[in-house]
Amino acid sequence: MIKLAVFGAGRIGYVHALNAAALPSVKLEYVVDPVPSAQRADLAAKTGARIVEADAVFSDPSIDGVIIASSTDTHAELILLSVAAGTAMFCEKPISLNFKLVTEVAEAVTKAGTPCMLGFQRRYDPNFRMVRERIQSGVSGVLEQLVMHTRDPSPPPVEYVKRSGGMFRDQAIHDFDMARYLLGEEIRTVYAVGGCLIDPEIGQAGDIDTAMITLTSKSGRFVQMNNCRRAPFGYDQRLEALCAKEVLYVENRPKDSVMIGSAQGFTSAPPMNYFIERFADAYRAEMVAFVEMLKTGAEPLAGMADGLEAQRLAEAAIVSMQTGKVVELTAGWQPD
Amino acid sequence: MIKLAVFGAGRIGYVHALNAAALPSVKLEYVVDPVPSAQRADLAAKTGARIVEADAVFSDPSIDGVIIASSTDTHAELILLSVAAGTAMFCEKPISLNFKLVTEVAEAVTKAGTPCMLGFQRRYDPNFRMVRERIQSGVSGVLEQLVMHTRDPSPPPVEYVKRSGGMFRDQAIHDFDMARYLLGEEIRTVYAVGGCLIDPEIGQAGDIDTAMITLTSKSGRFVQMNNCRRAPFGYDQRLEALCAKEVLYVENRPKDSVMIGSAQGFTSAPPMNYFIERFADAYRAEMVAFVEMLKTGAEPLAGMADGLEAQRLAEAAIVSMQTGKVVELTAGWQPD
Amino acid sequence: MIKLAVFGAGRIGYVHALNAAALPSVKLEYVVDPVPSAQRADLAAKTGARIVEADAVFSDPSIDGVIIASSTDTHAELILLSVAAGTAMFCEKPISLNFKLVTEVAEAVTKAGTPCMLGFQRRYDPNFRMVRERIQSGVSGVLEQLVMHTRDPSPPPVEYVKRSGGMFRDQAIHDFDMARYLLGEEIRTVYAVGGCLIDPEIGQAGDIDTAMITLTSKSGRFVQMNNCRRAPFGYDQRLEALCAKEVLYVENRPKDSVMIGSAQGFTSAPPMNYFIERFADAYRAEMVAFVEMLKTGAEPLAGMADGLEAQRLAEAAIVSMQTGKVVELTAGWQPD
Amino acid sequence: MIKLAVFGAGRIGYVHALNAAALPSVKLEYVVDPVPSAQRADLAAKTGARIVEADAVFSDPSIDGVIIASSTDTHAELILLSVAAGTAMFCEKPISLNFKLVTEVAEAVTKAGTPCMLGFQRRYDPNFRMVRERIQSGVSGVLEQLVMHTRDPSPPPVEYVKRSGGMFRDQAIHDFDMARYLLGEEIRTVYAVGGCLIDPEIGQAGDIDTAMITLTSKSGRFVQMNNCRRAPFGYDQRLEALCAKEVLYVENRPKDSVMIGSAQGFTSAPPMNYFIERFADAYRAEMVAFVEMLKTGAEPLAGMADGLEAQRLAEAAIVSMQTGKVVELTAGWQPD
Repeated sequence: MIKLAVFGAGRIGYVHALNAAALPSVKLEYVVDPVPSAQRADLAAKTGARIVEADAVFSDPSIDGVIIASSTDTHAELILLSVAAGTAMFCEKPISLNFKLVTEVAEAVTKAGTPCMLGFQRRYDPNFRMVRERIQSGVSGVLEQLVMHTRDPSPPPVEYVKRSGGMFRDQAIHDFDMARYLLGEEIRTVYAVGGCLIDPEIGQAGDIDTAMITLTSKSGRFVQMNNCRRAPFGYDQRLEALCAKEVLYVENRPKDSVMIGSAQGFTSAPPMNYFIERFADAYRAEMVAFVEMLKTGAEPLAGMADGLEAQRLAEAAIVSMQTGKVVELTAGWQPD
Repeated sequence: MIKLAVFGAGRIGYVHALNAAALPSVKLEYVVDPVPSAQRADLAAKTGARIVEADAVFSDPSIDGVIIASSTDTHAELILLSVAAGTAMFCEKPISLNFKLVTEVAEAVTKAGTPCMLGFQRRYDPNFRMVRERIQSGVSGVLEQLVMHTRDPSPPPVEYVKRSGGMFRDQAIHDFDMARYLLGEEIRTVYAVGGCLIDPEIGQAGDIDTAMITLTSKSGRFVQMNNCRRAPFGYDQRLEALCAKEVLYVENRPKDSVMIGSAQGFTSAPPMNYFIERFADAYRAEMVAFVEMLKTGAEPLAGMADGLEAQRLAEAAIVSMQTGKVVELTAGWQPD
Repeated sequence: MIKLAVFGAGRIGYVHALNAAALPSVKLEYVVDPVPSAQRADLAAKTGARIVEADAVFSDPSIDGVIIASSTDTHAELILLSVAAGTAMFCEKPISLNFKLVTEVAEAVTKAGTPCMLGFQRRYDPNFRMVRERIQSGVSGVLEQLVMHTRDPSPPPVEYVKRSGGMFRDQAIHDFDMARYLLGEEIRTVYAVGGCLIDPEIGQAGDIDTAMITLTSKSGRFVQMNNCRRAPFGYDQRLEALCAKEVLYVENRPKDSVMIGSAQGFTSAPPMNYFIERFADAYRAEMVAFVEMLKTGAEPLAGMADGLEAQRLAEAAIVSMQTGKVVELTAGWQPD
Repeated sequence: MIKLAVFGAGRIGYVHALNAAALPSVKLEYVVDPVPSAQRADLAAKTGARIVEADAVFSDPSIDGVIIASSTDTHAELILLSVAAGTAMFCEKPISLNFKLVTEVAEAVTKAGTPCMLGFQRRYDPNFRMVRERIQSGVSGVLEQLVMHTRDPSPPPVEYVKRSGGMFRDQAIHDFDMARYLLGEEIRTVYAVGGCLIDPEIGQAGDIDTAMITLTSKSGRFVQMNNCRRAPFGYDQRLEALCAKEVLYVENRPKDSVMIGSAQGFTSAPPMNYFIERFADAYRAEMVAFVEMLKTGAEPLAGMADGLEAQRLAEAAIVSMQTGKVVELTAGWQPD
């Protein structure tokens, strides 16, 4: 039996913990969350896990791995505690809003060699994965243009925005990761424009709600991202990979399969709402892969280095947007 | 130069005459329509044709072919006049509402060997034609189930209904023809149900506005037709051919290419409205084929025998609906 | 806690039992299946249920309900045992291949008043349900034409065919049920044609693999079903409801959301494969409704009378196909 | 009668001249093309126009308007001759590859007040026009993000590339124009990246074949363009306008309406090929509008100022790509 502990019984921690616990070879031992809640209690009840403090986890040598899904400001410390305890970990993105700290944590993980998987679930979605595999296989020809859409169904609460690190670190980071994943190489330049077109309160909180980003890769290929905090039709999460021999689209997944025709035309359902539902398969596959990593040492699709590089792109995008200039990513680039 | 005359300057005669006249090798000499109208004048003006009486056409030996697109009750007589004059003809369906007369006319044409093309324009539509060719080529495998939808955008005026011969002879006849065209064999049984669900005035005029028909072919394959006089979204003209190796759909052609997404979902355009617009390509291709027949003797896709057999199926469907029984089509079957 | 027993640990029994056991208020007490199998063992292990014989279930007064998902030839007896024990039941269709027995069982259930839910899961699929609700609400206008497609991805083993009661009782019965569910009234006439176009072994076993069926309702509305044992692209399960004000389609649910464009065109995924996967939501919703019925007495969407009437239509279709005649359903119609 | 002359009997001149000549109130008097060709002869034959030299046109006071569709390097001179003669003109884009000359010509036209319509046919396409009108009407809410795809089906001959002024002036200029048309305001910044990923010969000729461009508008809204010289599936010409209340897509128009389903999935037709076919409606509408301008003085949807501003954006994109920097468009910006 693989024994696990989860940090954080909030929205995403709850999903990960239940997915892990549903696997036949897994026992969820501990739930760590300082704030009592119905969800924390429910998670413990459903899985038979005990609610404990962090110390109890790291002092229990029988724990095979930890799922870090607590608030972002605790990630770095928990990763370092896992490294110290030699416990393998799955960690939600981002690692920290402080990029210097991200680089230090990444260095510590690498140095210690502690197995670490990062929560870029889109890599585990069967659709994105099929695109990656088809490109990697050579069937599609060279990927020349990548166009990604990520639009939330509606703006998050301003309180969330304030703690989020901004739209690039919080939301667009998945697209930065996907760009690297599909291109199979690093990014050379980043250019970002952004503004507050949807919700003035987000602007007052110092963030943006609408952005467009252009990346060029080391070998000279091209990426466009368009991101925002509201699409009128719901969650918009799509991708277009124009390759030399074919184009691959990942389309939205509709809520239902009913189409209605009237004099106005034919109306099909809006997309599934929201990432927890849209990526339910991917979240399940992540826990399967995490347990596989614990059992066999199999490399996950996203590791600490991927977290570091995706965030480097987010930092570069922030600098580009703030200065109005293109950022060229030299080796080890960091924001000032 | 190929010299033509057109009988009938109404909706469909106007389309055929202009399409023919637009061909480089064609001269439209005469327009015959007993009723003066702006459209008759316009047709003559645009093509340089003269407005004459029927006699003038058949006494002019330079006329290579006639387009018979006058009212249905004149078709049989004009065909017989063409046969007598030895003039090749294109004739709109149906040949006559009187099936006995249809068989006599068909016999006369066959006996005389006068070239004759029937106006089943759907055979010339590039989409239906591609389906036929793909099936004929063997790529699709055996056609097992054919499902056809023909629904008008809105009921015709009751005056039209009264003269039309009823929905089976007037509208469904195209589907009967398409069934024979795609199956590549004759029909063995016909079963039809129908009623008046849309417009009570149509019922008072002795016709139906909604029907479903089942055909079985001589070799035991299956056809479903559903027909009506109104689809809430406009003209519905589709086909599904389930074959052993693939399924082929002819879908509606949307009015435009704009799709609108909102909280209600994604709405794309209703179909093109109506047969004159939807089948514009097919009508043009018909005149090309007619002229080709006149020049080279090339067989058209639909001849007199096709008109006869499609109408036999319409007659059988009427008998089936009226008796509530299945009609078995023995050799030379005719309604009583 | 609601205590349940399941009869049958095969494909569908396994699904129902796990879905029921996953509900917070349910305890699966017993699994009854005379044939030892890995799946039977797995089901017991996952749910904590005991493997027992039928007697143990009906002599345990704490059992609130039974799930009858054993082989068809045991359904009738188990229903009668449930009635005798006064235990509420969920029963898979069909009730029996012997229609006389079906009517007797239905009468016994009705007389005793034992709560009984029938396994027409399509009624619980969110898509079909939305269509039903939209029609019932009046938004769509009167349903005039209903067209249904049910095509298996590939023919079942001949051994299955022999025990199945034939394609109409085994497969098309869901469409017969859906016709009644969406029309909201009974059927007046049934006409069926069928043959063996796909797999000659099915024909040798006395069954058909391809059929088309036409129904008319008491008030004169129309239904077409086309059914077969193989669609080249996979499981085909669709519906079109043409109503006076709009048309409603339930479309297939694609396997994935990737579309690939090349010189050949744009290719999207084939449908989900197969009913267990396609109707996963519906099967879950069925168990929720069954438990709700046990707790509150809430009427399920499909009861014993629905099972009886759907099967009556299957019997009429068999008679129609065998005689080549239309069957008129007078009150209490039964096959000879 | 409106009397017209056409300069250029090449691909697009031929289309414009035939469309104009087909209008009932138009007489095409002259065809001017220094190079004898079958197409020039055919155009004269079909329209009854005479083949003359340019002088003959400008010295004929009965000419109401000229269609300038000759090679790009002759546009500026012909415009100035039209201005001198006081003859209204329709001119294909671009006005000149020399931006300084474009500004001079634009100034001359404006000063003289000679009516002038520019050949941005996409403004006349019913789909793009519907998007514009829906946004202008307020129904869609504020346009926030505009994403445009323009991809040729295959790279043009290198000889064409060399004379074309480069992909931005030749192809992307339509997207620059569309951005201004849909935003309804001017552009503030331009950022472009490009490279040669498809055809090395294009690179050797000093041009690019793949590019991505980001625009921001004066009021802070965002535009992405992705352009290239080859899409594996054919001509890709799409647009997505994300507005506050809805999103509007202009999708590709498929070649046919046949969909084929097999085990690989469902394949629908690739797009119509190529701009002459895809924009046939738009080209017809352009000539209708040109003649309307000649008759009533009605403003065309695109005038000289639009040609100037679209080309300014193309020039800015070239500078941005060459310098790797963002170009800020101050009043009257010009390339050095």
